[in-house]
Amino acid sequence: MDYFKESLRLHEKWKWKIDFKSKIELNNKNDLSLAYTPWVAKPCLEIAKNPDNAYKYTIKWNTVAVISDWSAVLWLWNIWWLAWLPVMEWKCILFKEFAGVNAFPIVLDTQDTEEIIQTIKHISPTVGWINLEDISAPRCFIIEERLKEELNIPVFHDDQHGTAIVVLAWLINAIRVRDNLISPPAGTPLDKGRNNLIPPPAGTPFEKGRNNLIPPPAGTPFEKGRNYKIVVNWLWAAGTAIIKLLSLYWFEDIIVCDSKWIISINRTDLNNEKKEILKITNKNNIDWKLSDAVIWRDVFIWVSAPWVLTEEMVKSMNKDSMIFAMANPTPEIMPDIAKKAGALIVATGRSDFPNQLNNVLVFPGLFKWALKNRVIKITEQHKLDAAQALADYVNNPSVDEIIPSPLDKNVANVIASVIK
Amino acid sequence: MDYFKESLRLHEKWKWKIDFKSKIELNNKNDLSLAYTPWVAKPCLEIAKNPDNAYKYTIKWNTVAVISDWSAVLWLWNIWWLAWLPVMEWKCILFKEFAGVNAFPIVLDTQDTEEIIQTIKHISPTVGWINLEDISAPRCFIIEERLKEELNIPVFHDDQHGTAIVVLAWLINAIRVRDNLISPPAGTPLDKGRNNLIPPPAGTPFEKGRNNLIPPPAGTPFEKGRNYKIVVNWLWAAGTAIIKLLSLYWFEDIIVCDSKWIISINRTDLNNEKKEILKITNKNNIDWKLSDAVIWRDVFIWVSAPWVLTEEMVKSMNKDSMIFAMANPTPEIMPDIAKKAGALIVATGRSDFPNQLNNVLVFPGLFKWALKNRVIKITEQHKLDAAQALADYVNNPSVDEIIPSPLDKNVANVIASVIK
Repeated sequence: MDYFKESLRLHEKWKWKIDFKSKIELNNKNDLSLAYTPWVAKPCLEIAKNPDNAYKYTIKWNTVAVISDWSAVLWLWNIWWLAWLPVMEWKCILFKEFAGVNAFPIVLDTQDTEEIIQTIKHISPTVGWINLEDISAPRCFIIEERLKEELNIPVFHDDQHGTAIVVLAWLINAIRVRDNLISPPAGTPLDKGRNNLIPPPAGTPFEKGRNNLIPPPAGTPFEKGRNYKIVVNWLWAAGTAIIKLLSLYWFEDIIVCDSKWIISINRTDLNNEKKEILKITNKNNIDWKLSDAVIWRDVFIWVSAPWVLTEEMVKSMNKDSMIFAMANPTPEIMPDIAKKAGALIVATGRSDFPNQLNNVLVFPGLFKWALKNRVIKITEQHKLDAAQALADYVNNPSVDEIIPSPLDKNVANVIASVIK
Repeated sequence: MDYFKESLRLHEKWKWKIDFKSKIELNNKNDLSLAYTPWVAKPCLEIAKNPDNAYKYTIKWNTVAVISDWSAVLWLWNIWWLAWLPVMEWKCILFKEFAGVNAFPIVLDTQDTEEIIQTIKHISPTVGWINLEDISAPRCFIIEERLKEELNIPVFHDDQHGTAIVVLAWLINAIRVRDNLISPPAGTPLDKGRNNLIPPPAGTPFEKGRNNLIPPPAGTPFEKGRNYKIVVNWLWAAGTAIIKLLSLYWFEDIIVCDSKWIISINRTDLNNEKKEILKITNKNNIDWKLSDAVIWRDVFIWVSAPWVLTEEMVKSMNKDSMIFAMANPTPEIMPDIAKKAGALIVATGRSDFPNQLNNVLVFPGLFKWALKNRVIKITEQHKLDAAQALADYVNNPSVDEIIPSPLDKNVANVIASVIK
């Protein structure tokens, strides 16, 4: 099949992917008068009395704005705003199909940080959640942080946090498969209860420094010195969020590459974001070149560009390596090549390969839970809960079934019911 | 029935009035890969090549943003933004039910003119039409004018233009009923073809002055000196638009009241908007007090506040007067009182009285037509076309059936097919 052609044919047939419908019937003037003038005044007045009533009488309860400035369009780098709309519509479909949440897409005509913040603030009253989409770093950090402070609804940059949660879930199960740890890594933050975690968000572990982290509990693979060696590239939105979340889960040996080199104290060209990340990575001060960064590593997490991982590089990794090659549509390495070179478990973003890494496994359940419970802030603990729930959902993870299928609509319900 | 209570019960039952749905089925990984990664890249690339393709492959084709700053909330003056959401949702329902158009509501958290303009510009890429709603004058004029200049999609303040069109349609039919003019007033701009009209929008009649207006064609009620005497109050968004459209239809004897007095050349306190309106009204320089403005008038068009029209005032009007009392939910005068005092035809905004004046008779057809035909600007001629089509739709207008029922879903199709 010519997939490009078929996709185009389908998009032209659908013409648009989401459709709106009325929940009410308008059969007579009485229907009109109750739903609209004059008697709609009553719910209006109730909301005027107490803003919480908006959640009772309006769409706000269950509605998400999916907003993008199309500045981090992974595989179509230089595309412009209008061209990003098919993907945004798609995201809205997923919200509806997997979580029953109403979502509408907004592609912005600006990539100016302050304009984006102001625009989102001004349109926020209608919705119960702001989902930021495909916004590049570092502006995505600034936008998310400011909006979290200034709005009283959740603000969530899915490319960061959704990706981080899904990667952590995969890694938990990949370790289970590789090291026969069929039971969950005992003593992880999830098992020990919420209070054992550094309390987010008042002070993140990154602000407090590594010493505040609870030491890995006795008996876990981490404590036994297994000490999984991870390499992450590169340090954009998703990479940063992945590193932060993995660190919270006791992965301690992480090195990070930007487009030039491993992030180390020897570097003099680090911006503030990279300096922050250095505090929780590369504690042995490894200072190799980019091409050597994979040597003796167990886990490769790459969110960059097609074909950057060669067969030779995989051979230089530890035995039975775990590779997450997320470039889309062409991954950093094709799974068959990686496996031939010694990798045990390979995940990609592709729906036509096993172990598809897709945020649809996370955000519908998270949003469903948060909207239902009127949660205002998503904490680090919520993210860890979601990752553990996603990993535990797979009864018997195996090399080609590390993670549930993105089509499994039950995942959202399970995640929504597990988060506390 | 306790309508307030029943409305509240229904709103709580619905919880929200509009719902979104997916037009595509997601049954297997192939569905995923075609609608989303990796093959969604194809429609994205097609749109990147040519922005027009967004109308072919995305929701833009058939989607409207209904945007309000809740500054002109007629019957709940001081309500705040969130409390306006039930009405905004309602408007979106009407778009879907009557025109098949997808509409989503946005209540803004600002009433600052420049912030509103910038916000709407930034979110405009997704939609095919901006519908402004309940924005007060004069800011509504500024916002609409600027956005019309700066965006390449239609921008339409329904409270102005939708209301003006519906009032003109009513007036055409009211005159037909009162003066037995069952055929359309011959020789009106609609009959004479588009070329006879002052070409909008390059120079409106208001800019060019009254002398440029084509004289009323021979044989029309206008030419015979019937010269319907109209009084309009007051000069907010809807009033201004009504006066402009009625003038274009040869109604020449219009006087206007603001909250103080009739607008006349003797006034020294007129702002620019009022000075503009004076150019096309009150040519006999009537300078009475507000309470006397109705004396010897045929048509009373009031968009103001409950109970301002008394029985005595109606008695002072010409015989068989035509009264449009649009305050909501309590009109300027109750129809039975007006009729007792000598009015022949009374219209209100209420769905529980005859002759309900509601913009739903106009905007669905207008939007349907414009979205289908990719119309960028709505001209004065388009508005006249819509009004004439709406009036002509009623086969045998009578005192209590001047205008179609707002529930008649065929009206939108008729208007959409008549506009050229």
